[in-house]
Amino acid sequence: MTRPYNFGAGPAVLPEAILQTAQDELFDWHGHGMSILEISHRNKDFMAMMEKAESDLRELMSIPNNYKVLFLLSSARQQFAQVPLNILGDKTRADYIDTGIWSAMALGEAERYCQPNCAASSQAGNYTSIPARDTWELADDSAYCYFTSNETINGVEFHEPPDVGNLPLVADMTSNILSKPIDVSRYGLIFAGAQKNIAPAGMTIVIIRDDLLDRAHPMTPSTLNYKMIAEKDSLLYTNSTMPVYMAGLMFEWVKSQGGLEVMAKQNAQKAQSLYAAIDASDFYINPVDAACRSVMNVPFLLADEAKLPDFLAKADEAGLKALKGHRYVGGLRASLYNAMPQAGVDALIAFMADFEKHHG
Amino acid sequence: MTRPYNFGAGPAVLPEAILQTAQDELFDWHGHGMSILEISHRNKDFMAMMEKAESDLRELMSIPNNYKVLFLLSSARQQFAQVPLNILGDKTRADYIDTGIWSAMALGEAERYCQPNCAASSQAGNYTSIPARDTWELADDSAYCYFTSNETINGVEFHEPPDVGNLPLVADMTSNILSKPIDVSRYGLIFAGAQKNIAPAGMTIVIIRDDLLDRAHPMTPSTLNYKMIAEKDSLLYTNSTMPVYMAGLMFEWVKSQGGLEVMAKQNAQKAQSLYAAIDASDFYINPVDAACRSVMNVPFLLADEAKLPDFLAKADEAGLKALKGHRYVGGLRASLYNAMPQAGVDALIAFMADFEKHHG
Repeated sequence: MTRPYNFGAGPAVLPEAILQTAQDELFDWHGHGMSILEISHRNKDFMAMMEKAESDLRELMSIPNNYKVLFLLSSARQQFAQVPLNILGDKTRADYIDTGIWSAMALGEAERYCQPNCAASSQAGNYTSIPARDTWELADDSAYCYFTSNETINGVEFHEPPDVGNLPLVADMTSNILSKPIDVSRYGLIFAGAQKNIAPAGMTIVIIRDDLLDRAHPMTPSTLNYKMIAEKDSLLYTNSTMPVYMAGLMFEWVKSQGGLEVMAKQNAQKAQSLYAAIDASDFYINPVDAACRSVMNVPFLLADEAKLPDFLAKADEAGLKALKGHRYVGGLRASLYNAMPQAGVDALIAFMADFEKHHG
Repeated sequence: MTRPYNFGAGPAVLPEAILQTAQDELFDWHGHGMSILEISHRNKDFMAMMEKAESDLRELMSIPNNYKVLFLLSSARQQFAQVPLNILGDKTRADYIDTGIWSAMALGEAERYCQPNCAASSQAGNYTSIPARDTWELADDSAYCYFTSNETINGVEFHEPPDVGNLPLVADMTSNILSKPIDVSRYGLIFAGAQKNIAPAGMTIVIIRDDLLDRAHPMTPSTLNYKMIAEKDSLLYTNSTMPVYMAGLMFEWVKSQGGLEVMAKQNAQKAQSLYAAIDASDFYINPVDAACRSVMNVPFLLADEAKLPDFLAKADEAGLKALKGHRYVGGLRASLYNAMPQAGVDALIAFMADFEKHHG
C-alpha cells in the first residue's frame, strides 16, 4: 500500500504496522469477539494489556521505581491547569521558562492558581532561541520550574534539561517524548499528549515522582487528581480503550525498532538533512538558532511568501501532506516524528529543490 | 460474521455496520490517504464531519437553538466536578437526587465546591425505587437540581424528568441518551459519556442552555470551561478524532433506523421481554420497583448465588458476554443499549430458561 507522507504536527502519522494490527483486530480483539472499541476497561485482558504498555514504557525510558506512570483521558493543554492544581502545595510561586507559544499558554493558565514567575523569555526575539541558563531569574520559594522541552509551533528544542538544583523540574514533552533517551530522574514531572509520538489523540501520559503526589488543592476535581488516579492504576474513571491500546502497540513497535537510541539516531539524521537543505538555499528560511533547533518540528518560510499557496497545493498533489505552518506563525512546517521515515524527508527535500528550480 | 452478544454496561456493543465502516476506512479516511487516527482535528474535512455530527444530533434530539452542544475529551465522571465549577455561579447550594451509586458519587464530588443538598434519597431502600416528587425537600436559593436519569449499576430509570419549576435541571444521561425522545427544553444541562449509546469511550457530550454558560468559577481549568469550549466549537484543545468520528457514524445509524421513536419502541420491547422472563421465575430476581425499572440496564440476581460462576461461564461459552454485575452490587446485569438487537435478548432469555431447567 502506498501511503502519502503526513508531516502534520499532531494528530500525526502512525507506523503502518500498528495501523495494520488495529485494522486486522478491529472486529475481534484477542479472541474476545468484540472490538477494542467495545471492550470494558475493566476486562482483565484489557487491564493486563494496559499493565504491559506501562511496563514497556518504563523499560523504553528507564523510568525509576519512585515514579508513577499515569494514562490520562486528557488533552495536553489540560495539564497546564492540572500541574499547578496538583503540585503547588502551599506555595504561591512557580517558575516558567517562556520559549514559545505553548509555554506562554501554560504560564497564562497558571495565573488561575498562583503568581507564576517568568524566569526567562525569548519572546522578544520571536522565540527563535533559548535564553542562556545563567540569565534565568528563578523566584524564591518556588514550587517548581516549568519548561516546554520542544515547542511544536516555533521549532525550538531543549537538547538537555536545564539544571535547577533541587527545584522540581516539570517538562511538557508532548512533542519530543520517545524521540531520544532522557534521564527521567532529572525531572519531577513529565507530561506528554499522545498524539505525536505515542498514539492517536485522546490521551496524555504523566510520569511523576511520588513525593509530588500528595499536595493537590482541595478544589482539584477527582478526575484531575494525580494521586487518586495513581491509586486506581489510571482506572479511576472509564478510560479510553483505543488510545491505550494504540500506545501499547507503539511501545512494542519502538522496542522492535531498537529502542530510543535508534530513534534518536534516525531522528537526528532526518532533521539534519532537512535543515541542511533549507540552509543551502536562499529560497527557504529557518530563523531558529542552530543550537536549539527542534529535531521533531521544522518550521520554515519561503523567502517569497506569495508562493506559499502554490507550494502547498503542489506538495499535496505530490503526496506530501499537512505541511502548512501553524496559524499563529504561518509558513511551512514539517514534523518528523518517529513514524516518519527518512524516505519521507528525502521526498520532501527533492520536492523542495524541484519547486525552487521552477519557481526560484 | 457471527459476533457474540456483548451485554457490557460500557464501553459497550456498537452496531456492526459502523464498525465495518471504521475498519474499511482505517487506512484512508475520505480519500485523504491517512487514518482517522492520524488526521488533524483542524483538517477542514474533519471539522465539517464534526459539524455534521452536531447537526445530526440536534435533529435526532430536536435540540433548541438556545442550547450549545459540546463534544468533550472527558469522562462522564469528570462532569461531577465540571458541572458545579461551571454553573454554581455565586450560589452555595445545589440540590441532588440520590437514586443510585452514580448520583451519590456526583453529590460527593460537589462537596468540593458547595454545600450540596440531598433533596431526596432511596439509599435506605437499597436504591430500588425513586422517591415520589412530593417528598423532595429542595433547598432555598439552590443553583440547580441534579439527577441521574438512568442508574447503570442499580437499574433505576426516571421515565419522565421531574418538575422543579424554574430551577435549572441537570441530568446525567450517560446510559440512556438516544434511547428515546426527550424534551430538551425541560433541562438546563444534559451530559452523557459516549461509551454506551454513542461511541467508544473517550468523549462526553454536553448540551447546555446558553444562559448557564457565563458563570464559571475563576479556578475552573480552561479545558473544563463550557463557555471557552463553546466559543471554540469544541476545538479549544486537540480533541480526540476517533470518538467524534464514531459518534458521527452512530448518529447516522440511528437516523437510518428511524430515529428515537423507533429506538424507544425497540428498547421497550427488549426490556419488557427480559423483565417478563425474570418475573416469571423464582430462579431469577430483579428487586427494582416496576415503575422505575431501567430500560437500558437490567440487573438481576440468582436466588441461589452459589450458581453465579457457573452461569457466567456457561453464558460466556454460549456467546453471551459481559453479563457479570457491577462489583458494587454483584449478581448479573444485561445492558440493552440501542446496538443490542432483540435477537440478543431472545438468546439470553432462552439461555436463562435452559440454565434454570438444568440447575433449578
